[in-house]
Amino acid sequence: MVHTITFLPHNREIQVNDGEKLIRAAMDAGVHINASCGGEGVCGKCRVIIEAGTVEGGLSEQVSPEDRDKGVRLACRSTVTGDVTVRVPVESTIDASVLRQSYVPRRTARIQQKDLNDLKEAGLFLPPVEKIYIELPKPDNQDHLPDVTRLVSHLKLHHDEHRMTVSLPVIRKIPDVLREAEFRVTATMARPIIETGKTEIINVQPGDTTDYNYGIAMDIGTTTIYGQLIDLKTGEVLSDHGEFNGQISYGEDVISRIVFAEKGDGLDRLQRVVANTINTIINKIIKRAKVDPDNISAITLAGNTTMTQLFLKVNPRYIRRAPYVPASTLYPPIRAKDLGLDVEDHVTALVYPAVSSYVGGDIVAGVMGSGLYLDEPLTLFMDIGTNAEIVIGNRDWLACAACSAGPAFEGGGIKFGMRAAKGAIEDFSLDPVTWEPMLMTIGNVRPKGICGSGLIIMTAVMFELGLINNLGKFNRDLATDRLREDEGVWEYVLAWAEETQIDRDITLTEIDIENLIRAKGAIYSGCMTLLAEVGMGMQDIERIILAGGFGSYVDLEKAMTIGLLPEIDPEKVTFIGNSSLMGAKMSSLTNRIRRDVGEVTRSMTSFELSETPSYMDNYIAALFLPHTDLDQFPRLKARLANRSSKVN
Amino acid sequence: MVHTITFLPHNREIQVNDGEKLIRAAMDAGVHINASCGGEGVCGKCRVIIEAGTVEGGLSEQVSPEDRDKGVRLACRSTVTGDVTVRVPVESTIDASVLRQSYVPRRTARIQQKDLNDLKEAGLFLPPVEKIYIELPKPDNQDHLPDVTRLVSHLKLHHDEHRMTVSLPVIRKIPDVLREAEFRVTATMARPIIETGKTEIINVQPGDTTDYNYGIAMDIGTTTIYGQLIDLKTGEVLSDHGEFNGQISYGEDVISRIVFAEKGDGLDRLQRVVANTINTIINKIIKRAKVDPDNISAITLAGNTTMTQLFLKVNPRYIRRAPYVPASTLYPPIRAKDLGLDVEDHVTALVYPAVSSYVGGDIVAGVMGSGLYLDEPLTLFMDIGTNAEIVIGNRDWLACAACSAGPAFEGGGIKFGMRAAKGAIEDFSLDPVTWEPMLMTIGNVRPKGICGSGLIIMTAVMFELGLINNLGKFNRDLATDRLREDEGVWEYVLAWAEETQIDRDITLTEIDIENLIRAKGAIYSGCMTLLAEVGMGMQDIERIILAGGFGSYVDLEKAMTIGLLPEIDPEKVTFIGNSSLMGAKMSSLTNRIRRDVGEVTRSMTSFELSETPSYMDNYIAALFLPHTDLDQFPRLKARLANRSSKVN
Repeated sequence: MVHTITFLPHNREIQVNDGEKLIRAAMDAGVHINASCGGEGVCGKCRVIIEAGTVEGGLSEQVSPEDRDKGVRLACRSTVTGDVTVRVPVESTIDASVLRQSYVPRRTARIQQKDLNDLKEAGLFLPPVEKIYIELPKPDNQDHLPDVTRLVSHLKLHHDEHRMTVSLPVIRKIPDVLREAEFRVTATMARPIIETGKTEIINVQPGDTTDYNYGIAMDIGTTTIYGQLIDLKTGEVLSDHGEFNGQISYGEDVISRIVFAEKGDGLDRLQRVVANTINTIINKIIKRAKVDPDNISAITLAGNTTMTQLFLKVNPRYIRRAPYVPASTLYPPIRAKDLGLDVEDHVTALVYPAVSSYVGGDIVAGVMGSGLYLDEPLTLFMDIGTNAEIVIGNRDWLACAACSAGPAFEGGGIKFGMRAAKGAIEDFSLDPVTWEPMLMTIGNVRPKGICGSGLIIMTAVMFELGLINNLGKFNRDLATDRLREDEGVWEYVLAWAEETQIDRDITLTEIDIENLIRAKGAIYSGCMTLLAEVGMGMQDIERIILAGGFGSYVDLEKAMTIGLLPEIDPEKVTFIGNSSLMGAKMSSLTNRIRRDVGEVTRSMTSFELSETPSYMDNYIAALFLPHTDLDQFPRLKARLANRSSKVN
Repeated sequence: MVHTITFLPHNREIQVNDGEKLIRAAMDAGVHINASCGGEGVCGKCRVIIEAGTVEGGLSEQVSPEDRDKGVRLACRSTVTGDVTVRVPVESTIDASVLRQSYVPRRTARIQQKDLNDLKEAGLFLPPVEKIYIELPKPDNQDHLPDVTRLVSHLKLHHDEHRMTVSLPVIRKIPDVLREAEFRVTATMARPIIETGKTEIINVQPGDTTDYNYGIAMDIGTTTIYGQLIDLKTGEVLSDHGEFNGQISYGEDVISRIVFAEKGDGLDRLQRVVANTINTIINKIIKRAKVDPDNISAITLAGNTTMTQLFLKVNPRYIRRAPYVPASTLYPPIRAKDLGLDVEDHVTALVYPAVSSYVGGDIVAGVMGSGLYLDEPLTLFMDIGTNAEIVIGNRDWLACAACSAGPAFEGGGIKFGMRAAKGAIEDFSLDPVTWEPMLMTIGNVRPKGICGSGLIIMTAVMFELGLINNLGKFNRDLATDRLREDEGVWEYVLAWAEETQIDRDITLTEIDIENLIRAKGAIYSGCMTLLAEVGMGMQDIERIILAGGFGSYVDLEKAMTIGLLPEIDPEKVTFIGNSSLMGAKMSSLTNRIRRDVGEVTRSMTSFELSETPSYMDNYIAALFLPHTDLDQFPRLKARLANRSSKVN
């Protein structure tokens, strides 16, 4: 059920779902309400007056009985249960311009998840594994056909199958399975990747099991590994599970893992450990979906280049040594059991190819799974993290690069930075007169720190309202005690110690902002450099696809305001989530991707940014908010001009 | 050096090599000299007189000084060192016809061993594995090609190689090998079997190893396993070795092995045991030829259907149960290490396909390796043993069958039968007047028993001279104490107890002859049945290829006399030895065989003789010497008519 909320004196309306918190509705409506406690209801600052309709809750000891009767409620404790009109008390000193402040609701990227039907509609469905039920004539004195020949001949004659091979483990099973099942069996046919290839009969099961045909998709992340169990008939994800990559005990990042792998039996150990994590996930998703492991026909895995080489026990030694070359980009299909995976003999593991040492199979999986490589619009594909990978192109060409953004987007190098977990400030609004903040935290609890998406929003808001300038420096003339200098570093107090979970003031420092600017500058200049190398510019980008955990939370408008993303209609930005897992899933569903991936990988031009001369110039030009060239951000430019004209 | 020996009064000349024993020369010349001791020189019966020239040795205490001066020597102890004229004393009672006895020297089959040059001349040479030495550019800041891509691209550009795959174990090696060898390496290219297939890079080695490229051929026999190490560049066999199949401890024949395999972990154990024997052989031939195991590129194995299934750990349970179907005939290439073979990771095992449960890969190997499937003449291919396999056909069609001949050819079921080992009577002549024998044993020692080839010769000679009739029964009217009845069974004394190693009279019994007739009848009628099924007869056979140990010893004329082989010019009979090993070797040398073998196996019509109605009639007709239809043996018929006219 949807309710309409009207905020006064702004006279701004917003539709929200039943049960939404009033303060969230205000934030989404672009209505500022002072609130430093993240929505936990302790600061008592978010007082509003219900003028029509009712809300549920919203009371505390900070609201006196008289105020209650006047309709006063705490916005952070009020739950919307019907249409309501809410007045936000604005301090008398406030300029009316606040009320006219442009209304920019928080916009995150649309979710783009392709499924089996999309593939079928697009003509991209080539089943990788099919099951066929057959009833064979039994051998007798007049018919001595060997068992395998009997099976293969029948498939040729009655099912128009040709060019089949049968692997030894299946040959070993066939004689007993045929007789056990009175010669009524189901053959699992793994289709060739190239058209001229052979269909491999990978399993023969007693009776009719054609309804049970499953695949596993696995994302081997440096930190976390995710797996999905997929029904190959429907494309449905039957179960999924994630676990920390067991290799974490041997190093948090890829470099430390590589170093470990170089010593003694380090490589063997890391391979075993990651296989163990994968096996834990496989066992959980199989158990949860209650499927027979014998009906699992394939497993597709994707990961960055180092994770892929470690999993395949290919020493990643040269990935971290100039000139940084991986062993291989393409890997042949491999018997999953040979990799230590806890699946039946017949299961083949397909591992996504990489493009280079730093643009790995996870990115290729995203390019393939999103269908970007088949589409017309010029697309910018980004996976933003400590190492950000960028792909630009369309069905005609593809270029890619990786750039080291640093850990700012994950809260690293930020004084009160933290991962996107409970207590992280994830949304922010600023009163442009009093410079009081409005904070929202994950889980609506008192703040503990700042996560990456919150950092972007704060910086964007502060920049647009003039609290910081285009160099990321605070306007030191402003009259607020929230701005202060601490040990020579200027900072803004987001929450006072008593409003936090950590009993210290939580601040945003100029160093934090500088780190963010460096991070976004590295990425933006990476894109510009890639585009320049192919004779194009940011204005040519027609679509953005965001991958990775970060992409799902980022406020698109704010990311454009700080110059992380080029200015583009937010409608044209989509989010594919875990690209690695998504690509692995799509590969499980159609051979078309496996057929195309080799060619796509080969044709993807990989740029080593550090060796591309224009990169450093582009980087320095990007170390501003949003950029030295404001004309690249015409909408922002217009808003800034508008604000400036009002202020003056 | 060759010497001419003239035998008197026969006035028959023969050329023999320097160092030959005189008695062997006489046997080969068709000159009968009484001799029961097998050539050991103890019976003193083989007295001859040297009339011109000299021989070395030939003296013993049985030759008095006076006799010595007259030129008397023992033929079995005399070594030919120059031209010599020898008079054989003939007893006065002997009819002059003995001297006119038709001169039929012992004729064994010509050896047919194809080699690399034959393949090249016939246009059948398609190298299965080639090595290419390459010098790669090193990666640098401008060239980040991944290692595998670098290798593959170079092969494409500079060596006209296309459609390559690289397996994971090789990918694992490449980074270190490239750097260790300064990017100068040798790639081992395994060529596709079908033209549309891919070349697999199975190994990459530092430096230039193109001169070292080896293959292994292996015959997995029920009793014995033989291996050869082959230089793939020259086709030369560098070393070879045979060992008893370790499975013998679990049963002597295929049926007992199958029974063992059905119980508990019997199959696993038999697989391990045969792999162990093969490993012993591999290690010996590698060591003997002093080659680096890393330069071994392939292994090809052939064996009968049961041996093949046991080696591949495919339960052979249904081979011994009606309707006797094997699991498969064709097997895919298999990583040798997965089969427990002691070779490098990159070595692929190719296993010869079978046609049916009783016509196995050993026979197919013979058909392929001999080139029979490519030739014009209608050929009869036989591997004679307890189970005899027969293939008839040419490049247009092929039919095959197996028949159970019983163990007579290996000395089984024969009162004094033995394998072809030292002391076995292997050659025989008979004085048609005195009915005294002339025996030659393997190793020229006193006789211990009768081997298969000796049995055939005895039976043929006795039949042709009339000691036995066409039913294999002795002419009981003959005046010789060598013919006697013992416990109701008639027998001929080949050697008296004191002349033997076993201190018992060695005899040939009517039961022995009956067993031989059954054995040869089974085979001959098998051939007739096969031919009749395709509308042909024995007279259409243009060529015979004999395989197996037995074929190398058999006296062709005698085998035709008893009706084991059809009458054909002995020049048209060739012997290929161990067909299994030979075919495996040829497959190591050219892909043409591997390319053709699937089609050949499929097109080979397999007849189950026991279920072919005409077989029993043909069998009964063949239970005579040589056959009820003597017209099938025109040359023998003429000789018998000639003899009969003289006798009368």
